[in-house]
This record gives sequence, C-alpha cells and structure tokens, in this order.
Amino acid sequence: MKEIKGGVTSPKGFKAADCAAGIKYQGRTDMAMVSSDVPCDCAGTFTSNVVKAACVQWDMDLVYSGRKMQAVVVNSGIANACTGKEGFEACEKTAKAVEKYANIPADTVAVASTGVIGMQLPVEKLTAGVEAMSGTLDGSTEAGTAASKAIMTTDTVNKEIAVTFEAGGKTVTLGGMSKGSGMIHPNMCTMLGFLTTDLSIEKSLLQEALSDVIKDTFNMITVDGDTSTNDTLLIMANGLAGNETIKEKNNDYYSFKEALFHVCRYLARRMASDGEGATKLFEAKVVNAKTKEDARTLSRAIVGSNLSKAAIYGCDANFGRFLCAMGYSGAKFDQTDVELFFESKAGRLQVFDKGTPLDFDEDFAVKIMKEDEVTVFVDMHEGSEEATAWGCDLTYDYVKINADYRS
Amino acid sequence: MKEIKGGVTSPKGFKAADCAAGIKYQGRTDMAMVSSDVPCDCAGTFTSNVVKAACVQWDMDLVYSGRKMQAVVVNSGIANACTGKEGFEACEKTAKAVEKYANIPADTVAVASTGVIGMQLPVEKLTAGVEAMSGTLDGSTEAGTAASKAIMTTDTVNKEIAVTFEAGGKTVTLGGMSKGSGMIHPNMCTMLGFLTTDLSIEKSLLQEALSDVIKDTFNMITVDGDTSTNDTLLIMANGLAGNETIKEKNNDYYSFKEALFHVCRYLARRMASDGEGATKLFEAKVVNAKTKEDARTLSRAIVGSNLSKAAIYGCDANFGRFLCAMGYSGAKFDQTDVELFFESKAGRLQVFDKGTPLDFDEDFAVKIMKEDEVTVFVDMHEGSEEATAWGCDLTYDYVKINADYRS
Repeated sequence: MKEIKGGVTSPKGFKAADCAAGIKYQGRTDMAMVSSDVPCDCAGTFTSNVVKAACVQWDMDLVYSGRKMQAVVVNSGIANACTGKEGFEACEKTAKAVEKYANIPADTVAVASTGVIGMQLPVEKLTAGVEAMSGTLDGSTEAGTAASKAIMTTDTVNKEIAVTFEAGGKTVTLGGMSKGSGMIHPNMCTMLGFLTTDLSIEKSLLQEALSDVIKDTFNMITVDGDTSTNDTLLIMANGLAGNETIKEKNNDYYSFKEALFHVCRYLARRMASDGEGATKLFEAKVVNAKTKEDARTLSRAIVGSNLSKAAIYGCDANFGRFLCAMGYSGAKFDQTDVELFFESKAGRLQVFDKGTPLDFDEDFAVKIMKEDEVTVFVDMHEGSEEATAWGCDLTYDYVKINADYRS
Repeated sequence: MKEIKGGVTSPKGFKAADCAAGIKYQGRTDMAMVSSDVPCDCAGTFTSNVVKAACVQWDMDLVYSGRKMQAVVVNSGIANACTGKEGFEACEKTAKAVEKYANIPADTVAVASTGVIGMQLPVEKLTAGVEAMSGTLDGSTEAGTAASKAIMTTDTVNKEIAVTFEAGGKTVTLGGMSKGSGMIHPNMCTMLGFLTTDLSIEKSLLQEALSDVIKDTFNMITVDGDTSTNDTLLIMANGLAGNETIKEKNNDYYSFKEALFHVCRYLARRMASDGEGATKLFEAKVVNAKTKEDARTLSRAIVGSNLSKAAIYGCDANFGRFLCAMGYSGAKFDQTDVELFFESKAGRLQVFDKGTPLDFDEDFAVKIMKEDEVTVFVDMHEGSEEATAWGCDLTYDYVKINADYRS
C-alpha cells in the first residue's frame, strides 16, 4: 500500500464537483457532489444519536435496503436535523434533482448535511446547486480537493487522502475526504466522511470491513464529547479496478482492510487535530489493558476530559487529571498497577509509577508538551490489549467559536 | 421547615475552626475542622471514581464500619489522591493529631482533601494545623462560616446553609457547607460536603435518607463532566436536639428528609452556579419522561454538553444543541413528541414543537438568556416522570483557570 496525491476522485470512474449555493455562508463554496460512472456497492455507518438528521435517515434507508449508490450530494451550513417532514422532503427533492440533471437514479443518491441544527434547508438553492454541479462533474484531483473544501464548516483545513494497493494482481485505489471540527464525539462513525474505491467487493464484506475499521479510527476521536445528529461515513466501491470480486476474507480482503484503516485513521487524526479552537493533537495510548474495550474506554476518557484538554493547552503536566479521567471512565483497574508517561517529538517522561507520583523535571515536561502532537502513554500492566484515541486541547477559541455559532 | 442564618455550627453541640496551614496557598486559610461535643451517628456517600483519594478510602472505612464519627478535618490545596502509601499515612497522622490535641478518638475522625492530584501532603503542616484548630474550636455562626471559606479552592463564594424543622415535638437543626467549582460531575455525591444535625436517628435510616436525597441534588449537577477522585459527602447526627430517636419512616423521618433535600439542593445549586469560570446557572428541567432515570439522564445530558454550555454563555438560542445532547444521552425517545422552551425571570419562549422548529423571536430569546439563571424546559410527552439538573456556562475563564491550575 502506498499513499498518493489525491482524494475521492482518485479511484477509476469517480468524479466530483462543488459550487457556492448560498445556503448559509456567503463568498465560499458550500455544496459538493461525488458520483461514479457506474452504480456502486456501498456501505455506511451512522450516528448513534437518537435524534438523527433527516439526511441520515435517508442514507440509512439507502444503505440498508441493499440498493446501489451512484452519487452523494453534500451541503454545509445547515444540518437538516430536527426539521420534521419538511426536512425529509428536502432530501427527496435533492435526489430527484440529481436524477433530472445528472441522469443518476434518485434512489441511488445519498445526501448529507452539516451545520446548524433546527433550521430548514432552502430547497431551491440546493436543487439549483445540483443543476450547476451536474454540468461540471470532473475526475481530476483538483475537483476532489474542491469538494473536500466545500463541505467544511468550522474546519480550518480540508481533509483528503488517497492510497493504492494490490488486489488480485490489479492496482486498486481508495480515496476519501471528511469534515468535522466541532460536535465531534463519533459513536458509530464520525461527522461526515466519504470514501471511494474502484475495488470490486461484495457489499456484506465492504460493510464488515468498514464497521470494523471505524472502531479504532473514527470512533476513537473526540473534540467535545458531543455526538452529532448527522454523523455519516459512506463508502462507494464501483469495481472498475477490474480485480476478481472479493467474496471471502482472503489476502485481497486484508490488503483492502489495511488500506481502509490507513485512510480512516489519517482522516480521523486530521479531524481531531483540527478540532474547534485546537492548537494541537492530543493522543492517548493505553497498552497492556485487560480487554480491548477497556483500552478503548480508558484512552477515550483521557482525551475526552475537559480538564485534561485544558492541561494540554496550558502545557501543564498535571497528570492527576488523566488518572482521574481513567478512574471515572467505567473501566475497572488498580491504580497501583499503572505507569503514566508524557511523549512527543521532544522526548519521553515518566510521571507516575504504580500508584506513586514521581518527582519529575517540570521544565522537560513543558518542553515535551509544547510540541504540536502530544501523547499520554499509559501502561496498565494488567493484560495485553491496547488502543489509541485522539482529541485536541481545549482553548479560549473553542468557547469563542461556540458561544455564538449561528451569527 | 425554615431557613436560618448559619451553617455547620448551627445544630446543638457542633463547633468549627479554621487556620492557615500553608499547605499550598499563601495568605489565606486552608484547613477547617468540625467537631461534635459527643460522638455522632454518621452516613456518607463517596465518589464512584475507581481512582479514589486516600482520604476517601479512609472515610469509607469509617462510615461503613459502623463506628461513630466525632470530627472531620479538611484541607484545601492538595487532594491526597494518587499518593500511594504515603497518602494513607497522612490520613492516619492527621487523625492521631486530633486525638492528641482535641481528645477525640482517632478512629472517629474523618479527613477530606481537595486540590491538586498527585502531590504529597506536607504532614507536619497538617498536624500543626490540627493543633492550632483544636485550641480554637467554637460553636458560633462565624466559626462555621470561616470553616466554609477555608475549604474553598477555585470557588469564588463560600457555600453554607442551615434550616430548622420539628421532629417529635423538638426543634431540630440541620446545617451544611460544601465546596466545589471544577472537576464537578458527581456520581454518588459531590466534591466536598459536610452536614451536621442535632437530630437523633438510627444510622441506617440516616444513610438511606442521604443516599436517596443526593440522587436529585448533588448527583444532578455538573460543571465539566469530570468526576473527581475526592467526592465526599458526610453527615453527622449527634442527637442533642432531644427528639425521640427516629427508628422507622414516620412523619419525623420525612420532615428530616425534606430538610435534607432543601439543604442538599441549595448547596448543589450553589456549586453549579459557582462552577469554574461560570457567569450563570444553567438549569435543565425535563418533564413527562417515560422513567425517572430517563428524566435524570436527559436533564444531565443537556447541562453537561460543552456545546450547550457555550451557547448559554453566548446567549445563543441554538436549541438544536440541546436536542442533540438529549439524543446521545442514552435515553430513548421520539423527537416528534418533544417540546422545548427557554425560561428565565425575563419570560418563557417555545422554540421547538414536536419535531418542528418554531420561527421564534430572537431578541426575546436573547433577553431570556441574559439572566443569571437560565432554564431549558423540555416536555417529553411520553410519561409522567421529571427531573432537574444544574450546571453552568462554558467560558473563556474556565479554560484560563484550568490551563495552568498548578501554578
């Protein structure tokens, strides 16, 4: 497997387009469309929030019904959540516009929205956007990049990646883009992520690989503990790489899963480090836990704690906060087994040794924590399972961004 | 029942003292002691955090063993959590100092600490403090107030209350003090709370009343979602009011429970509104939920959400965030049943009506949200249970306070 320059348009037969539909933002693009030349097998994971946006319900129906997927239309600015009957009609009208202008059947069109909850979408602007984009769909790398920019809300950077790997003697490409900066605490998947591949694979295996990979990628990031109403991750596989269709867990399947893990982890980490107001990536790695679930729970609790996040922002090696967060996470453990370290490019420092605080070098601790990526490394000494979670620091700007988001 | 001026020294036979022991803070008091003239029946609730401070483990042993309690010694500045064997020795030495200087048996002395986790207590300063306080124990209202100030950390105001009620023809007094401002997300009870009463009541009923009352008081507040390693709530009942001992759930028991609820709710609300960096009290009231547990879960999720808290700070009626928080809380419900209102002294405004957003008056919404106490009122229309939770807004100052807490 190797990384290449590109994104959702890198696999064979995928095109993208973007436009400025004026949904809520002015002076920037706010709609994107990704389509395949041929119908795709698809899989998806969706928010566990009881309050699901209309578009999430639309996409769940598409993915779970077993129908093919050939396009996805995304808008930023308004989330189409808590919008009642009118919200569902907006999904339907968008899909029908794709049928009308791009000649892709409406029942193969996924829709996704991100932005303010509780506002209705301006449907005419959406359908006008679809009309404009249908005429400019393009398979270039630039078109994929432009699409990844159009779906941003409070994101400060776009997120895209592409990799190639071998399957059945053929070179297969997997591309992806995602957005997410606030209301990020995925539970099933994350804010919005769209993956494309020219692999040929059975739908059930595509779903199984995706559902498995997100457990250690998108589901391991948190920005603010708020699980969105709109979390959606979709993958479309159009088979144009020409490999023999993957129908069992053979070597090709594991090559694909490795590529999928790489892409999902990259996009997840990028989202965490671009969390609203964030100045750095905050990683927690827990090793030698009793169970895999414990390792995930503990590492997520560390990066999810407001107090831990504020300490990371302030470069304050206040390690008690990390132990405190582990303690209320729900995982059972004995603090007298635990060793805790701070790590970054600047070095590694142990601060807690099996129940006892160490008298550590504060200056060195600050030096470690001043880096762009800081890791809290915890050895539980109670088993052999490990997990890594990603978050960001809690800053004044997070509060600023969210105290008046709608204006 | 009626409120009177006072606190922990208001019930008959209770005294308090404070001193500046120089544990971590300079130029302020940092130790308090509360004692009873006679041994007390006692009850307590403690943090559910797996990482329990040494003092919590000390107090749990005292309360659960069935021994009497006659004094409690509290320090602020250092939490005595994650301190290993040395931490337990600090508890023991403190209790022994009380025996030596105040002639109260060491095995009836509770200890409590609050402050930085992972630092050792300076035991000589603690025992010197006990010696000083043992000579100045005093039953005046002022002594109680001074004690409630000595236990503050980042609190901006002290928290104390006293009430009287009738039991068996006698006037009984119940007093209390608490502290807590950050790392507040009680689960079993809250940061530090100390209640005193001259009621005569059997220990098992005292514990039952306390455990029941905290469910709708201390356990319903949150500042930052971080459940402390040190949460401790203790009550001492010395029987000096002279009432016939309460041995069953008679009218006297319920009079006591009503007074206990009043005191605990007052202290809990005070802690929420004095949350680190807070500018206002943020209340969520959920009515007509399917179950009591659902009502509690939903109301806690609303006040616990960073995005909701930031919106409250910014006076932004971004109601979708409250619905989003309810949606990921774990409670099951149908958004098309839900009505949501904003309330304060300035008025009441409905913003969401059974699945559909309302076109509301933004100026009026801002007016409502500018008050010191803002309530999000949610009618679930799915049952008959209700609950109220309290929190505070998320501000720049929360980040500031916590980005460099140790310095």
